[in-house]
Amino acid sequence: MSKKNNQDKLLVFALGGVGEIGKNMYVVQYNDDIVVVDAGLKFPEEDMLGIDIVIPDVSYLVENQDKVRGILITHGHEDHIGGLPYVLKSLNVPVYATKLTLGLIEVKLKEAGMLGDTKRILITAESELQLGSIKASFFKTNHSIPDSVGVCLDTPEGIIVHTGDFKFDHSPVNEQYADLQRIAEIGKKGVLALLSDSTNAERPGYTPSEKNVGNRLEDIFRTATQRVVVATFASNVHRIQQVINAAIATRRKIAVVGRSMVNVVTIANELGYLNIPEGMLIEPEEVNRLAADRVVILCTGSQGEPMSALTRMARSTHRKVDILPGDTVIIAATPIPGNERYVGRTVDELYRLGANVIYGSGSVSGVHVSGHGSQEELKLMLNLVKPKYFIPIHGEYRMLRIHADLAEEVGIDPENVFVLDNGDTVEFQNGQAARGVKVQAGRVLIDGLGVGDVGNIVLRDRKLLSQDGILVVVVTLSKEDGTILSGPDIISRGFVYVRESEGLLDEANRIVTSTLNKLMNDKVNEWASLKTNVKDSLGRFLYEQTRRRPMILPIIMEV
Amino acid sequence: MSKKNNQDKLLVFALGGVGEIGKNMYVVQYNDDIVVVDAGLKFPEEDMLGIDIVIPDVSYLVENQDKVRGILITHGHEDHIGGLPYVLKSLNVPVYATKLTLGLIEVKLKEAGMLGDTKRILITAESELQLGSIKASFFKTNHSIPDSVGVCLDTPEGIIVHTGDFKFDHSPVNEQYADLQRIAEIGKKGVLALLSDSTNAERPGYTPSEKNVGNRLEDIFRTATQRVVVATFASNVHRIQQVINAAIATRRKIAVVGRSMVNVVTIANELGYLNIPEGMLIEPEEVNRLAADRVVILCTGSQGEPMSALTRMARSTHRKVDILPGDTVIIAATPIPGNERYVGRTVDELYRLGANVIYGSGSVSGVHVSGHGSQEELKLMLNLVKPKYFIPIHGEYRMLRIHADLAEEVGIDPENVFVLDNGDTVEFQNGQAARGVKVQAGRVLIDGLGVGDVGNIVLRDRKLLSQDGILVVVVTLSKEDGTILSGPDIISRGFVYVRESEGLLDEANRIVTSTLNKLMNDKVNEWASLKTNVKDSLGRFLYEQTRRRPMILPIIMEV
Repeated sequence: MSKKNNQDKLLVFALGGVGEIGKNMYVVQYNDDIVVVDAGLKFPEEDMLGIDIVIPDVSYLVENQDKVRGILITHGHEDHIGGLPYVLKSLNVPVYATKLTLGLIEVKLKEAGMLGDTKRILITAESELQLGSIKASFFKTNHSIPDSVGVCLDTPEGIIVHTGDFKFDHSPVNEQYADLQRIAEIGKKGVLALLSDSTNAERPGYTPSEKNVGNRLEDIFRTATQRVVVATFASNVHRIQQVINAAIATRRKIAVVGRSMVNVVTIANELGYLNIPEGMLIEPEEVNRLAADRVVILCTGSQGEPMSALTRMARSTHRKVDILPGDTVIIAATPIPGNERYVGRTVDELYRLGANVIYGSGSVSGVHVSGHGSQEELKLMLNLVKPKYFIPIHGEYRMLRIHADLAEEVGIDPENVFVLDNGDTVEFQNGQAARGVKVQAGRVLIDGLGVGDVGNIVLRDRKLLSQDGILVVVVTLSKEDGTILSGPDIISRGFVYVRESEGLLDEANRIVTSTLNKLMNDKVNEWASLKTNVKDSLGRFLYEQTRRRPMILPIIMEV
Repeated sequence: MSKKNNQDKLLVFALGGVGEIGKNMYVVQYNDDIVVVDAGLKFPEEDMLGIDIVIPDVSYLVENQDKVRGILITHGHEDHIGGLPYVLKSLNVPVYATKLTLGLIEVKLKEAGMLGDTKRILITAESELQLGSIKASFFKTNHSIPDSVGVCLDTPEGIIVHTGDFKFDHSPVNEQYADLQRIAEIGKKGVLALLSDSTNAERPGYTPSEKNVGNRLEDIFRTATQRVVVATFASNVHRIQQVINAAIATRRKIAVVGRSMVNVVTIANELGYLNIPEGMLIEPEEVNRLAADRVVILCTGSQGEPMSALTRMARSTHRKVDILPGDTVIIAATPIPGNERYVGRTVDELYRLGANVIYGSGSVSGVHVSGHGSQEELKLMLNLVKPKYFIPIHGEYRMLRIHADLAEEVGIDPENVFVLDNGDTVEFQNGQAARGVKVQAGRVLIDGLGVGDVGNIVLRDRKLLSQDGILVVVVTLSKEDGTILSGPDIISRGFVYVRESEGLLDEANRIVTSTLNKLMNDKVNEWASLKTNVKDSLGRFLYEQTRRRPMILPIIMEV
């Protein structure tokens, strides 16, 4: 441990991931050494119309670029790696990740044409890194993707532990046990602060083992008299392994369908994270050549995503696979909030095709368990690590708050718990923590190739346009005397269908004409004033007639 | 029973309510006598941008207006009465409903200025109506609103039973028992077909009694050290009674907040459906004058609706009531699919204000139970009624399908089960049923005052506008030689913010100019062709630059 001065201090904060699910990015800074944990993306909320994804605002890191020693990635989910292609463009620092995680990152960077320009360093759960004055080490966790790790950052001010996403699965798939001993050992050394996953803080009890799903899958595969279709998250390699195992046990072959499912199965197999016997996989084209009770179709679409394999099968628009009456379809996932209706629609369509559908919450259907620990597991983590300070992360505000209450239950002093917003800092000095100065944090919206060019004004306009459409009013005035030379022409998009609303639009036309004529008589001829008057009189008329408020865009030309 | 001819037949179909949750409307027709059950609305789906509500297409009824003997209403929920103000405009037939239901209908008709023009007939569960050749009688059910009934239609072809929405609550609030004896008696007579509520067909077991919620509320009221805020559906009068009972037991007074909550409490109290002791209710302004542990605030907002009382309290924008640290807030409802995020945000905001929040699924929080029966109750209904034919109603397709499976489990011949889409008919003749000719059915979209004037083209435009906005391109050409006299001017709304994208729009301008000049050189001067070319070249350029596809609206003027 290096010597400390009075000005030395340790800062901990989130640039994304607290007060929200998504775009995880946590920062630990000791003096001039910054270590970043994760660089995720978030899917847009329902009011972010037309937005593709959201990433954290990394201005603070860009301004302190020379201090950033690296980005440590805890696991390969989008909300932890999806921001990398954008972040690394403005902040080219080394990225450290375990094998599968790095494999998934490299797919992303390759797609973005950035593979040659980035520094990527492979670690294992046993690696130790000296990142300036901060020593980083890792510990294995259980999660719904293999190769997930927690991070231990040993700083001159004390140890910070970041759990990553975790559950405690005491019978994990492929013997991938969480490293309880290592976590306990770190706890024994004395931990200054714990940052821990709050996703399931609202759920009492324990999250069941992934193995339970395996047993249930095997039962279903065995009793199904025809084909079995399983949709799950492509990244859930453990789940995929269990589908394979159940297929082996029931003498079925597997066809993998859907781009991201094919990608993940390929990478995970290459890197040794899947155990697939020779001859187990068949091409989708071969499905119809085998007896129906010898086939499993493993596919994407567990969230009812419009372009996914299962959705297309359900709509009978998939090029290679049809759902036939008597097929069994397993949706081995819980809908992410907001996706319930999509999943419901897919299930409806599958039923219409005559399939048996097994879906719904894991406790009823038995075909899904969460990858995040429930309340008792969160307490177990707190008790293993025994931190002095606690910062709940990775959750909406209510989840952080409830996680804070759990910490209090296991004996953490409530004064020592910090529930943060993105950008809120905690400063540690001489073993004491206090809130520090807020750093810049926020959301950057990605729309197509545009990074951050869609702001509140554009979003507000999209919202208005989506509600009542737009009316464009075009009129040409004479430069000399202001008389109307042509128009007004009124064009409607998303307001009313012109052919069915001729009377309304004719009347609107008369109103624009008389408004302009009146203004001309009154010698009002500044454009701004003409436009405002047209907008107001037309807006008033349309609201009276229809109770709608389309955007009105007056275009006045002078010749 | 009247004499039957060979041509006599009984038709049963839905104009709304099957393959969906909402806009319930069922039709039973014997020769020239039509009886309609319910006239509900549905809230728009997420792709119906800007739409306020959706109602059934009643063309069939309007065409057969002279045959319609009346509309029987099973209970006062929006998805059963909300379509009435629209339906009665084109179909002025008598509406029959029990007391509370009629009270709620009259509020609606009054708001629509239609109270004087409609025929409304009060019934009780004991009423018998002769509607042409069809005799209607009723039976009490349990549901999340008082005064709900099922309908028994005795036709010359046989008896049709329609359950309305129901559960079996063996310890109902205010002793409002379902009439098991009457249902059994109808079953004993022999029922041709049962139409039964499928809302909870996916849920195993029994739905718990509303009384369970009462007990839990009383516990919470007793242990809360400060004010208690309860948000629930305004129409859930039983729940409201239990809030009152718990307040009495814990010596708290109640302030009612939120327009629809005030309305329902007023009507239900006037009509005798609530038992409120003298002096129990206080004005919201009086809340601060009482000790915090003597107060309950009963309010709307259990779905996180943006303008509701609880949402405004959570955002500290309510004029009369503030949430204070230590207050207990109970959200006594389950989010309707699609509302999860809104409710989550409200809970977050309440936690930020320091409140304790009790929310989430009923089985965890104990503060909500469903108003619809689960699988065992659906089987009980089937076994009580013992119909020959079965038509599951009131549910998405998957729910109907699962309900059909339940019917099979209790011994109904699968050949005798009809899973219908809206408009599909079942014809009964001489005791035998078969699918008949489809009648017109569909959705009518209401946007402001417009009924049915927003169609697929307008919705498609709104969708496009919401994703990438619009660019209006205005240019004035000379009539003589086609040279550009003014413009092109490009106006962006919802695409990019002009001030931050000057370079892009300048380049767009150049592309429009060169496209037009090239066309003029080539002597192409039909407007359609000019517009198409501008659209294509600009669209291509913008997609290359931004990967977005804004709507492009070229306006070419000639002078």
